Amino acid sequence: MKISIIGAAGSVGAPAAFYLAAKGLADEVVMIGGRKQNVLKQHAMDLSTAVSAMDMVIRAGDYSDMGGSDIVINAAGAPQGVIADRMEMLPKNISLCEGIATQVKQYCPDAFFITATNPVDPLNYATFLAGDFDRHKLIGYSINDTFRFKEMIAKAKHARVSQVDGLVLGEHGSSQVLLFSTARVHGQNVSFTEEQKQSLRAGVPNILKGYEELKAGRTAGWTCAIGLEIIVRAIVEDQQCVIPCSVVLDGEYGLRNMSMSVPVVLGREGIVDIIELDLADDEMAGLEKTVATLRPAMSIVETSLSSANQ
Amino acid sequence: MKISIIGAAGSVGAPAAFYLAAKGLADEVVMIGGRKQNVLKQHAMDLSTAVSAMDMVIRAGDYSDMGGSDIVINAAGAPQGVIADRMEMLPKNISLCEGIATQVKQYCPDAFFITATNPVDPLNYATFLAGDFDRHKLIGYSINDTFRFKEMIAKAKHARVSQVDGLVLGEHGSSQVLLFSTARVHGQNVSFTEEQKQSLRAGVPNILKGYEELKAGRTAGWTCAIGLEIIVRAIVEDQQCVIPCSVVLDGEYGLRNMSMSVPVVLGREGIVDIIELDLADDEMAGLEKTVATLRPAMSIVETSLSSANQ
Amino acid sequence: MKISIIGAAGSVGAPAAFYLAAKGLADEVVMIGGRKQNVLKQHAMDLSTAVSAMDMVIRAGDYSDMGGSDIVINAAGAPQGVIADRMEMLPKNISLCEGIATQVKQYCPDAFFITATNPVDPLNYATFLAGDFDRHKLIGYSINDTFRFKEMIAKAKHARVSQVDGLVLGEHGSSQVLLFSTARVHGQNVSFTEEQKQSLRAGVPNILKGYEELKAGRTAGWTCAIGLEIIVRAIVEDQQCVIPCSVVLDGEYGLRNMSMSVPVVLGREGIVDIIELDLADDEMAGLEKTVATLRPAMSIVETSLSSANQ
Amino acid sequence: MKISIIGAAGSVGAPAAFYLAAKGLADEVVMIGGRKQNVLKQHAMDLSTAVSAMDMVIRAGDYSDMGGSDIVINAAGAPQGVIADRMEMLPKNISLCEGIATQVKQYCPDAFFITATNPVDPLNYATFLAGDFDRHKLIGYSINDTFRFKEMIAKAKHARVSQVDGLVLGEHGSSQVLLFSTARVHGQNVSFTEEQKQSLRAGVPNILKGYEELKAGRTAGWTCAIGLEIIVRAIVEDQQCVIPCSVVLDGEYGLRNMSMSVPVVLGREGIVDIIELDLADDEMAGLEKTVATLRPAMSIVETSLSSANQ
Ligand SMILES: NC(=O)c1ccc[n+]([C@@H]2O[C@H](COP(=O)([O-])OP(=O)(O)OC[C@H]3O[C@@H](n4cnc5c(N)ncnc54)[C@H](O)[C@@H]3O)[C@@H](O)[C@H]2O)c1
Ligand SMILES: NC(=O)c1ccc[n+]([C@@H]2O[C@H](COP(=O)([O-])OP(=O)(O)OC[C@H]3O[C@@H](n4cnc5c(N)ncnc54)[C@H](O)[C@@H]3O)[C@@H](O)[C@H]2O)c1
Ligand SMILES: NC(=O)c1ccc[n+]([C@@H]2O[C@H](COP(=O)([O-])OP(=O)(O)OC[C@H]3O[C@@H](n4cnc5c(N)ncnc54)[C@H](O)[C@@H]3O)[C@@H](O)[C@H]2O)c1
Ligand SMILES: NC(=O)c1ccc[n+]([C@@H]2O[C@H](COP(=O)([O-])OP(=O)(O)OC[C@H]3O[C@@H](n4cnc5c(N)ncnc54)[C@H](O)[C@@H]3O)[C@@H](O)[C@H]2O)c1
Repeated sequence: MKISIIGAAGSVGAPAAFYLAAKGLADEVVMIGGRKQNVLKQHAMDLSTAVSAMDMVIRAGDYSDMGGSDIVINAAGAPQGVIADRMEMLPKNISLCEGIATQVKQYCPDAFFITATNPVDPLNYATFLAGDFDRHKLIGYSINDTFRFKEMIAKAKHARVSQVDGLVLGEHGSSQVLLFSTARVHGQNVSFTEEQKQSLRAGVPNILKGYEELKAGRTAGWTCAIGLEIIVRAIVEDQQCVIPCSVVLDGEYGLRNMSMSVPVVLGREGIVDIIELDLADDEMAGLEKTVATLRPAMSIVETSLSSANQ
Repeated sequence: MKISIIGAAGSVGAPAAFYLAAKGLADEVVMIGGRKQNVLKQHAMDLSTAVSAMDMVIRAGDYSDMGGSDIVINAAGAPQGVIADRMEMLPKNISLCEGIATQVKQYCPDAFFITATNPVDPLNYATFLAGDFDRHKLIGYSINDTFRFKEMIAKAKHARVSQVDGLVLGEHGSSQVLLFSTARVHGQNVSFTEEQKQSLRAGVPNILKGYEELKAGRTAGWTCAIGLEIIVRAIVEDQQCVIPCSVVLDGEYGLRNMSMSVPVVLGREGIVDIIELDLADDEMAGLEKTVATLRPAMSIVETSLSSANQ
Repeated sequence: MKISIIGAAGSVGAPAAFYLAAKGLADEVVMIGGRKQNVLKQHAMDLSTAVSAMDMVIRAGDYSDMGGSDIVINAAGAPQGVIADRMEMLPKNISLCEGIATQVKQYCPDAFFITATNPVDPLNYATFLAGDFDRHKLIGYSINDTFRFKEMIAKAKHARVSQVDGLVLGEHGSSQVLLFSTARVHGQNVSFTEEQKQSLRAGVPNILKGYEELKAGRTAGWTCAIGLEIIVRAIVEDQQCVIPCSVVLDGEYGLRNMSMSVPVVLGREGIVDIIELDLADDEMAGLEKTVATLRPAMSIVETSLSSANQ
Repeated sequence: MKISIIGAAGSVGAPAAFYLAAKGLADEVVMIGGRKQNVLKQHAMDLSTAVSAMDMVIRAGDYSDMGGSDIVINAAGAPQGVIADRMEMLPKNISLCEGIATQVKQYCPDAFFITATNPVDPLNYATFLAGDFDRHKLIGYSINDTFRFKEMIAKAKHARVSQVDGLVLGEHGSSQVLLFSTARVHGQNVSFTEEQKQSLRAGVPNILKGYEELKAGRTAGWTCAIGLEIIVRAIVEDQQCVIPCSVVLDGEYGLRNMSMSVPVVLGREGIVDIIELDLADDEMAGLEKTVATLRPAMSIVETSLSSANQ
């Protein structure tokens, strides 16, 4: 497995590079960065020694070094400052992602292409349009929302997180849909009062707020490392397991021309299935709301792309 | 297992906290920091979600939260800037480490106490003197030198690092002793010409230099995460395996009143054996040189401690 | 962990001893047998060398060597010949199991006590009565039925077994209840026509028949090794996961004074919860039928015990 | 990975099939047997359910089902009764192994071919001659001797076996050479008095005797399962690690036209290196003795083959 990581000196990219290597999921890791090439090189030097006992090749490189990659992870991003909503970053990151898509198209068009850059849903769609890729190998990284939903359920039901199941649909952002119908503890369905649901939904925007208020100068890189390992392992080991990912839709849930989180079955060949869940009424309403939030962003992406192509 | 990490927002502490948690080696991790408490809290929040599926308790805390720790890792350090030799940091970090030793003595005197702060040899000795700890549970982190020695051997012998063995003795610094007599490839002894040895020894100071020249604002945190996991696993799983660590000597190699790297047998009860290798003549000479380098630093530690105790 | 296995030279006991040891779940394994002590000793000698790299103590022993066991596995059984129904073995194995229960009561009354001997439901109940044990640490081994139900679902739904969920309730025997309401593929509910259900239910007795017709002189020991490892791992690692086990009921599902398979939450402290599923109408009918099948066997057990105690 | 096992219902073959499958080293396992096809089928049925959660294909088959195998393991053997020396089995097993070699040549000539049948050294040589195979993919299974040598060292040196190293050379039989020069505890060389060496060497024939006296009707199948897993894993994961195996020599140790145990470096491509150790004087003498023991057996093999080819 050859894995290339763009933005590999960042607070998402570097922990991801480390953890994927430490778990033995790659033979070769190419780390690609932005302006601070010195920082990138230092990370590559450090990581190379860290995993030296596994005989991997770890190196700093540029886009042309991506050739032959099985998986590309895009964790590049413009400096973010303190934001109230991930959507604020769309103008800054859209051309960045289009440019990266062009490079991947040139050097490793058949690789899996995982985008973490925010806002992840429109940017996964932008990548799709810019590179005309097979959507079955294009993944927007959004699993953190599901991790946090499970933490909420565990707290509400006084259970261990390890014993909890649950899934989030829609935007990787404030309008995400908590699917209470998928909540399970010890494999058993659990129910929530309308009040409980409201209160948990109301908590979603506070999570980002809680991070941003701390002004730490980094994002949730440890969580992303764990989630990216789950996704990459599903691919490498052909696990065919269900993972929530932002994917370009083509009729699923009655939607097209957009990307958002849905449960997908992921394996060595790509996304082999998109699971269309039976949604409860309030979940259908939530879906409509999240689509309404995402549509304008998708339009911006389409406009940006078509002007770029003129 | 309860593990407390001091300096847990740093470039050594944070990856260590992440990796020890991700590998399931703790039930509880307390992250203790310096001035930037916001950064520390953000790391704890992130890491807590990252490993939520394992039901661990991860939290930012202060020294009083260390009570009941099985293992304490000290990765705190004064801002380092660009240095030419780790010994430069002794004046800045000596009272820091003494202070931490006092806290550990108060809250969890029986814990394993691993020091990563540089210069690690005199600071492990300072910790010993300041806290009057059992030296069998005091470990100075120095395994990176051995990782790098193996990389050198692999390169020199055109072998895979995974197939190479070798050990470094003495200072975690420029005077370290590369034990060519311990070098093995595929379990077989390999020999080096005098010229090869000279050239590899000459390369040692260039490693730190290579890092420092990049001015990346971080140290070899990924490598330390891997090495600290090896040490912590040896303890938790009572592996009784041989690991090079800086330890306070009490007659071994004819030395006392100092700490330096030697091969130790490590398990759940602590250091159960210090292996006294038969050294070749040039290795004996190297040992004398490294001791000569370390002695003055040990004197500074003793002086600092006795003045503190007046 | 100290694990004692009774019937450890048998086609269930020996593979279980091997696999539990090979997976590193014990520090000590005591193998106890019946008449052929030479075979038992040969297995112990072989297994001891097999796992020698893990420093375990493996030895043939007698009941008095069980002292201090954390887990006892009863895989002893009278020679079985070719049977049409596991219940045929009740008269032959009832006093065997009572005798073993008395030994466990004497030497390690607080150990987990897992019974594999058939018919497992009445014999787990006999063990309970004979030893007056805490029912939360008494487990009848019946998970093979659930393995086979998953294989059926996978075949019927053209899915991989790894992607299938499903659970069996009631007797470890022909009257077992296939819970179609718990059947899931890729985490999604799947439905079965009445015809499909009938045909799958009708297949249950053919499984035993298929084995017996081959007259191989051994039972499903490899499957039991895998299932026993799952149970023992749940205990050792305190997994608190859901596993179908035959347990003595005390009001759950409206039943008492009997043992049968139900989903339990299992961890280091024992059975921490018995999950009472909402059953579909046909499943309720199935439950009544399996209880009707088991009741007479439970009466035989009670009679045998009370006459033994006079 | 497709693995075919011949003699898969035997006391070596069946545990090997189980453990290789349970460790996830194959996608497909073909089990081939001798006369008792019912026993073979029962094992395959059982094992197939045992590992059903891993979606493997496990089935009883005949030689034509070996097509496409990556690895073939020959654990077939004539009924052994009670023997004093493995060499007694040569007349009974030589044509059996030649026949199997012909089948492998026909159906999967490029597979790794591991022979466990005794006497393993002449039979690996017979396989080589009968099938004209590439000797780099032909392995005679003999690692049990090294396991037992490590147990001896651990006992003599009061160490844990996990901390011991050591290697055996030559015949898988009474004339095997215990290489005391390779004995290490905690990675350190250890020395033995001449008396100790004599006593340990004298113990070698007693190991087989100890097994045979028990008349258990089975051989060391659990130990072989562990050792075969080590060999198969080295191949599957391309570990390039050192393992003692019986291999056809072509000048190594000054020997040709024979097979005996030597340390080999094993990986996905086969035996990439045969390590020629510097032997101590008494070890050289031992080597001469073991070669003298093996030569006549190799002659018998050559005679048998040439008469078969007339
Ligand atoms: N999807 C999620 O769940 C999730 C979670 C956390 C962060 N993120 C997003 O991931 C992105 C990265 O976050 P971060 O915290 O690592 O940021 P960061 O600022 O720490 O790192 C970004 C990296 O991108 C590099 N970069 C910038 N421009 C580049 C270019 N043109 N080419 C190559 N590299 C370039 C920078 O050098 C830097 O190393 C952000 O958009 C962030 O919002 C997403
Ligand atoms: N032994 C080795 O092999 C090795 C390798 C790399 C780094 N190091 C050493 O480890 C130390 C840390 O390195 P780093 O790169 O993580 O530095 P860093 O500056 O990134 O982190 C140091 C951390 O210590 C904290 N800190 C400072 N004063 C503190 C105090 N009084 N109490 C608690 N926390 C305090 C800071 O807040 C910071 O988070 C340095 O001394 C460095 O030289 C050792
Ligand atoms: N619960 C399940 O899913 C399941 C599956 C397979 C087998 N089984 C049952 O497990 C039992 C064992 O099956 P097996 O195939 O291993 O049988 P087996 O005949 O191969 O082994 C039984 C062992 O019990 C020993 N034994 C007999 N009497 C004993 C005594 N008084 N004390 C100690 N040991 C004694 C024998 O020496 C023998 O080694 C049978 O009752 C069988 O029906 C249950
Ligand atoms: N190399 C080692 O370290 C080692 C260790 C243990 C056993 N062995 C050897 O392994 C061999 C098998 O031992 P075992 O204990 O499993 O014996 P076993 O009798 O239990 O099994 C042998 C199997 O081979 C099958 N068989 C016989 N003739 C066959 C044929 N023509 N084609 C296909 N299958 C055939 C039988 O049906 C039986 O299942 C013996 O030669 C034994 O000495 C080697």
